[in-house]
Amino acid sequence: MSMSFKYELPTKIEFGHHVIQKLPEHVHALGGSRALIVTDPGLIEAGIVDQAVQPLLDAQIPFDIFSEIEPDPDIEGVPKAVQAAQKAGCDIVIGLGGGSSLDTAKAAGIMLGNDGDIRDYVGINKVPHRGAPVIAVPTTAGTGSEVTIWSVLTDKQSGAKLSVGSPHNCPALALCDPMLTLTLPPHITAATGMDALTHALESYVNKATQPISEGMSLQAMTLIARSLRTAVFHGKDVQARYDMLLASLIAALAFNETRLGIAHALALPLGAHFHIPHGTVNAMLLPEVMEFNYPSQIEKFKRIAEIFGERVAEVSDREAAYRSVAAIRQLKEDVGITQSLTSYGVQEEHLDRIAEEAMQSGNIPVNPRMPTPEDLKQICRKLMTPS
Amino acid sequence: MSMSFKYELPTKIEFGHHVIQKLPEHVHALGGSRALIVTDPGLIEAGIVDQAVQPLLDAQIPFDIFSEIEPDPDIEGVPKAVQAAQKAGCDIVIGLGGGSSLDTAKAAGIMLGNDGDIRDYVGINKVPHRGAPVIAVPTTAGTGSEVTIWSVLTDKQSGAKLSVGSPHNCPALALCDPMLTLTLPPHITAATGMDALTHALESYVNKATQPISEGMSLQAMTLIARSLRTAVFHGKDVQARYDMLLASLIAALAFNETRLGIAHALALPLGAHFHIPHGTVNAMLLPEVMEFNYPSQIEKFKRIAEIFGERVAEVSDREAAYRSVAAIRQLKEDVGITQSLTSYGVQEEHLDRIAEEAMQSGNIPVNPRMPTPEDLKQICRKLMTPS
Repeated sequence: MSMSFKYELPTKIEFGHHVIQKLPEHVHALGGSRALIVTDPGLIEAGIVDQAVQPLLDAQIPFDIFSEIEPDPDIEGVPKAVQAAQKAGCDIVIGLGGGSSLDTAKAAGIMLGNDGDIRDYVGINKVPHRGAPVIAVPTTAGTGSEVTIWSVLTDKQSGAKLSVGSPHNCPALALCDPMLTLTLPPHITAATGMDALTHALESYVNKATQPISEGMSLQAMTLIARSLRTAVFHGKDVQARYDMLLASLIAALAFNETRLGIAHALALPLGAHFHIPHGTVNAMLLPEVMEFNYPSQIEKFKRIAEIFGERVAEVSDREAAYRSVAAIRQLKEDVGITQSLTSYGVQEEHLDRIAEEAMQSGNIPVNPRMPTPEDLKQICRKLMTPS
Repeated sequence: MSMSFKYELPTKIEFGHHVIQKLPEHVHALGGSRALIVTDPGLIEAGIVDQAVQPLLDAQIPFDIFSEIEPDPDIEGVPKAVQAAQKAGCDIVIGLGGGSSLDTAKAAGIMLGNDGDIRDYVGINKVPHRGAPVIAVPTTAGTGSEVTIWSVLTDKQSGAKLSVGSPHNCPALALCDPMLTLTLPPHITAATGMDALTHALESYVNKATQPISEGMSLQAMTLIARSLRTAVFHGKDVQARYDMLLASLIAALAFNETRLGIAHALALPLGAHFHIPHGTVNAMLLPEVMEFNYPSQIEKFKRIAEIFGERVAEVSDREAAYRSVAAIRQLKEDVGITQSLTSYGVQEEHLDRIAEEAMQSGNIPVNPRMPTPEDLKQICRKLMTPS
């Protein structure tokens, strides 16, 4: 754990059932006169966008909708959204959706207050000025993008995932309404929930963690242990949806200051080149990465085992720590994530490039156990069907 | 626990050994050209102020010192500090000290950006504008004022404690250097540490708590359980001082959004009328208030017992919860807080007024068990020597 640390939370949080009704007052409070809603076509079809639009209509706040967001959002979506905002005279952005919509909305917010191209700001702390205010309304419980400094955008030409990280990329407000997640299908609930777990867990055991983040990670894991299965199997369970949206938010408050670990380092190239949904690939990787990491953090993995209901009192600390791996592997399978990397087309011949790209990630140096490229390949091999 | 909640952290945090060296860069980052240091004479004498002054001198940042701060700071200190700042042309305030210095510095910061008198802003959310930036440098581990919305100031005429609470009263930066606390005498370490514990614990069990605060409270109590005795008995133990300053900070991040409970409701009038140091009176009250409250929150008090090392597995939940009371009573005595209210001059005849004033506190409605005035008097009687 690092002995010196900083903590900063540029985003205000409002959380609770039906807080979407408060959207108009927040638009006013942030000085917005016309809003651009950045979302995806699926959410329009599912009627979720209506739940945000109705309060705006009632309050006579004018708005436009930019709905060209796809999974693994194209970085070109950012200038398109900016153009839509400028053409219509929008001075506030509302991101409504999963990580793809929120990440694009946030980046568009930046570009409404900064010159040049969003590509100029790839990296960490490269954004010079505050942009237009962004209200982030998450509709999945996983990404935590509603409070993070990060936007992950895909360069469709090269297939690379580009990350923009800056306090200026934090939304002004995270408006978190669990009622918007009640209709999320089980497989998305499972994948995004495992993504949130990966955030909490990788931050908790990594070398950059610090006490505020640790407290957040523990709280997030406790909520996920209690409610992920329920949210997957009983989607209308309001308390479980509340817990999961909260866990996703709190996990992001943890990792915002610490980065993550091997699972995220591998998830980016695997996701980019083989189109594996981000939550799914994290879920696949997490138990294997835990198995690699646990000897380096026995006490913490023992605590994780405890949180996930394993019996730890009657065994050695090392055995207790190992039980966390079994617990998370079981959780992943219980919520229906049983795919192999092979089923997404990953073959032995791809692993050199995947490992090489993963080793470049800022998530590698903070991982509690330093991996070699061969270690990363070995982790991937465990998720491949033997040929 | 409240189902809807807000969370906001207007203060940036920088924490670690020797971070006081970074004071000049933070003055620059906040746009300050000349600083007013608000502190007390004891800290000048102890050489603590020098540790802040030297980096400013090295960086050629001009400053003035206002050191007229006493315990239970007079509200009239605020206009005096403001006048000193205006006369010298200071555009940034550095609060250096315990709660008294920080609370006055914060209020002076407000008044450098708002009209009228600080008395106009007593209450919650009454401050209309942001003031001058304030850097808060705590030298005790207890108040948490470095991140809270609160300044508690004493009206010397009426003896009343007046509280100003506003996000605009949050410092721009909390610069937390455990090395500044190494020379804190044992009795102040004990009292301020028990104050931090009271913050964490009262927030954790109260009706307004919410999940982010809960996580913070748990983390703070864990640190205090590990390190308060060590900090009191081995003042030069760097890790214990680190833990305690951190616990104080994190406890404040918890209660900032939730208010507290009966101990704080009683501590204000008892402190104001009988000049009992704030930490001491909280420490005296806490076990008695816990004994009143624990039946209303069995699960949480059981968790507190566990954190403080009590055996809870072999007894009923109710008995486990009660063990938290015994644990905290023992901790209080171990760190040397054995005074009675009687020794400060509190008599039966004073209790009506104390209870009446305490019942007005915003900390009463959130307490997990609603007290009558008679309940409050009974709590006080337990801390009085039978006549």
